[in-house]
Amino acid sequence: MSDSFEIAGRGLTSRLFIGTAGYPNRQIMLDSIVASGAQVVTVSIRRISLEGYAESMVDLLGSDYVLLPNTAGCSTAREAVLTARLAREALRTNWIKLEVIGDRETLHPDVTELLKATEELVADGFTVLPYCNDDPVSCRKLADAGAAAVMPLGSPIGSGMGIANPHAIELICARSTVPVILDAGIGTASDATLALELGCDGVLLNTAVAKARDPRRMASAMRAAVEAGRHACLAGRIPKRTHAEASSPQLGLIGT
Amino acid sequence: MSDSFEIAGRGLTSRLFIGTAGYPNRQIMLDSIVASGAQVVTVSIRRISLEGYAESMVDLLGSDYVLLPNTAGCSTAREAVLTARLAREALRTNWIKLEVIGDRETLHPDVTELLKATEELVADGFTVLPYCNDDPVSCRKLADAGAAAVMPLGSPIGSGMGIANPHAIELICARSTVPVILDAGIGTASDATLALELGCDGVLLNTAVAKARDPRRMASAMRAAVEAGRHACLAGRIPKRTHAEASSPQLGLIGT
Amino acid sequence: MSDSFEIAGRGLTSRLFIGTAGYPNRQIMLDSIVASGAQVVTVSIRRISLEGYAESMVDLLGSDYVLLPNTAGCSTAREAVLTARLAREALRTNWIKLEVIGDRETLHPDVTELLKATEELVADGFTVLPYCNDDPVSCRKLADAGAAAVMPLGSPIGSGMGIANPHAIELICARSTVPVILDAGIGTASDATLALELGCDGVLLNTAVAKARDPRRMASAMRAAVEAGRHACLAGRIPKRTHAEASSPQLGLIGT
Amino acid sequence: MSDSFEIAGRGLTSRLFIGTAGYPNRQIMLDSIVASGAQVVTVSIRRISLEGYAESMVDLLGSDYVLLPNTAGCSTAREAVLTARLAREALRTNWIKLEVIGDRETLHPDVTELLKATEELVADGFTVLPYCNDDPVSCRKLADAGAAAVMPLGSPIGSGMGIANPHAIELICARSTVPVILDAGIGTASDATLALELGCDGVLLNTAVAKARDPRRMASAMRAAVEAGRHACLAGRIPKRTHAEASSPQLGLIGT
Repeated sequence: MSDSFEIAGRGLTSRLFIGTAGYPNRQIMLDSIVASGAQVVTVSIRRISLEGYAESMVDLLGSDYVLLPNTAGCSTAREAVLTARLAREALRTNWIKLEVIGDRETLHPDVTELLKATEELVADGFTVLPYCNDDPVSCRKLADAGAAAVMPLGSPIGSGMGIANPHAIELICARSTVPVILDAGIGTASDATLALELGCDGVLLNTAVAKARDPRRMASAMRAAVEAGRHACLAGRIPKRTHAEASSPQLGLIGT
Repeated sequence: MSDSFEIAGRGLTSRLFIGTAGYPNRQIMLDSIVASGAQVVTVSIRRISLEGYAESMVDLLGSDYVLLPNTAGCSTAREAVLTARLAREALRTNWIKLEVIGDRETLHPDVTELLKATEELVADGFTVLPYCNDDPVSCRKLADAGAAAVMPLGSPIGSGMGIANPHAIELICARSTVPVILDAGIGTASDATLALELGCDGVLLNTAVAKARDPRRMASAMRAAVEAGRHACLAGRIPKRTHAEASSPQLGLIGT
Repeated sequence: MSDSFEIAGRGLTSRLFIGTAGYPNRQIMLDSIVASGAQVVTVSIRRISLEGYAESMVDLLGSDYVLLPNTAGCSTAREAVLTARLAREALRTNWIKLEVIGDRETLHPDVTELLKATEELVADGFTVLPYCNDDPVSCRKLADAGAAAVMPLGSPIGSGMGIANPHAIELICARSTVPVILDAGIGTASDATLALELGCDGVLLNTAVAKARDPRRMASAMRAAVEAGRHACLAGRIPKRTHAEASSPQLGLIGT
Repeated sequence: MSDSFEIAGRGLTSRLFIGTAGYPNRQIMLDSIVASGAQVVTVSIRRISLEGYAESMVDLLGSDYVLLPNTAGCSTAREAVLTARLAREALRTNWIKLEVIGDRETLHPDVTELLKATEELVADGFTVLPYCNDDPVSCRKLADAGAAAVMPLGSPIGSGMGIANPHAIELICARSTVPVILDAGIGTASDATLALELGCDGVLLNTAVAKARDPRRMASAMRAAVEAGRHACLAGRIPKRTHAEASSPQLGLIGT
């Protein structure tokens, strides 16, 4: 039952992408990443990153994982492009998780700036994975602009509300020409399972593991959750019916 | 991370109970049961069962699995008790999944008859697992009457609607003095994951696997789903918030 | 568009039943009842009621409203039957909202005791409206036992969670031989509208109005909500589709 | 309890905006509009409109209603701007419901083109009400560009799925500097009630009434639904609790 997918020509067998922020300590972070089975690990780029942190992330994780720097916190295309370029230097990768935030309160993406940054970074040779909203038109435009995947939000970053609009995610998956990675909002394992069932190629999460009471165990949960969802998606679920249907044979009941 | 539970003193490591009805053929059934990792396998008892089918189920499955005969299709305590006794003879087990159906259309349980049958079978030495509705009072009464576990429905049998009332299931789990096995309504993997997250000790399903397009793969999905849900339950999920919360550190943004 | 229904032969034009407990003061209670347009008003019976309160409720409301005493807080058939009889004396009505609570924490009904009390009170000439769970089998048994209506819960009393399992309520309405009044759990106007859309004949609520910031205005909201839901139910809603469908004509677009 | 709101300086007492497409016949359309209590009525502009239809709509409705032409079916800013200008000529109004569709299948808006058209039409003196997605950032940008109101979708046009992401709509309402009119997806009365409860200033719908089995009655339902939702929003609903809370006083129970 091997089942892999590709982003920008790179084969991936794990469909779980995991973040590195907010763990109780570095050891729990490393253990959780191992338990998650993830191959792609996101790291945020900050000025301070460039003085040691990024290097230490490369040392810690760079040989075993695909590092995916993000532009978390940027609010204009200009800032995001600059951050992406610094990340490329620091982490020696042209992959970038592109975040351009429209406001600091909801942390929703700014689609217009995102498109602009995507075009610029694609032209500059980046493999761009934009964090976007759950809107099929924006997702299509990002793919048309050269995004290697699209990363629609399930619900606001860090909210743990899961997938607020499953129908929209399903629509996006059914129509996307590039891989769809659900990003943001995952709170627990069933949210990740559902994402894969809706047709997502993968799930990116951070807080749900890092801030769980037991991050290592939640990482194991997420690993199994993504596997469950992917199998279920491929297995072809039964339809939902509004009426009951006996599973046991109805002939030869005792006492009738 | 070993994690087992007990029903009537019997330790179980798998939290998935699986049915044997409705598969495309016997080989797919056997493969699916193996793929599911289940230890407890339900079989329905019919008159015809007593002339060969039950024996063949014992031959096929009896050495590797805990067989759990059910009284599917019974609509009175009298019928159910009679069926349970025949099942005990035929399958040489005193475990019984007790179904007493209140009407043939919704297949909802008849709680009054169920209680009566539970009392009678417990007195007769059975280990009784009643299929009941998602009502905390009925569940408590069944446990008080000696049920070894309670099996509230997620949604109508065969409907694939999942868990119609997660709050009720959570209430039942929080208060039950015996194991809670979600029974009926599971449609896909995320439903099973959710059941465990809500606090259920296990999940029983049949149609969701037997009638999936690829039963073997769906059985694998369910195995992983239950594992994911159990880990998530123990790991302690993050709270749901209505507002966003940045996962990445907010200091030292580039360009600020 | 006049549209009435009957309980035990009594025609009712308002489909909203309202409670009298928990208002900031008596004047707000009276104003709220007027604003709600309710014809049936519930009052709880307590020992102290029998020393003045019940009489004062009769004086206050008895000439303008159908008083519906309830047996709130009773936990056995015996207590409930006794309370109903005292209520009949005190309020000079044989209508009774029958509550038999299965536990003091969830306030879920005890279906077995409820059935017993229903049979006894029906035999004694009462018009019995039992508060029950959202289970089609229990509802049918109560109707068979002579209940004049059934009152399934939307969600736990006072929770304001609305209708936790709309499918179950819809099933009950589609099959009931007596009027169905949704009771318990209503939190806001859209919950009441939904109840009527699902096929309920009416809605009973108390806390949602009494504890709203502005009870009088919430009573107006509920009056309109019930009217909206009833009209919508009769008007025959459009089906839900998973895909968009243009409402405007597609011919002759400008610029094409 | 009078309660009005303003769009572009014009006071409105009805919070229901209704469309004119797809009714069984013109009389039912007119009756439904009357029954709905709407003051604002949308009409779509087509080439054929300009040869009689638009004039006839002005004759039919122009003296009693605020006509709101829409640019339904346009897929670029250029087409939409052209359509808006023709509508202004034909209907003698500078109000325009701006639709710029991103794809013909989902009918989701194209936010980038929408912003461009909004800016252009605002500069040209139009009162612009853009149909947009349920994204707080896009809504804010449209308001900043001079939109007189924003009209986020509940769910895809004509789908009848209601409000797919209530949290997003609530976020938008809490932060918007201009009125929020929920547009698209309304299927039945409770959807409209919910929109107002979430904080929307109004609701625009068409198919839910025009294609109901009885459009006139559904129009009455919607009128009451919007009133119910508005009152409930102002009345301040009770909080949702996960646990029950008795509404009746707990002292002096009979039989204790």
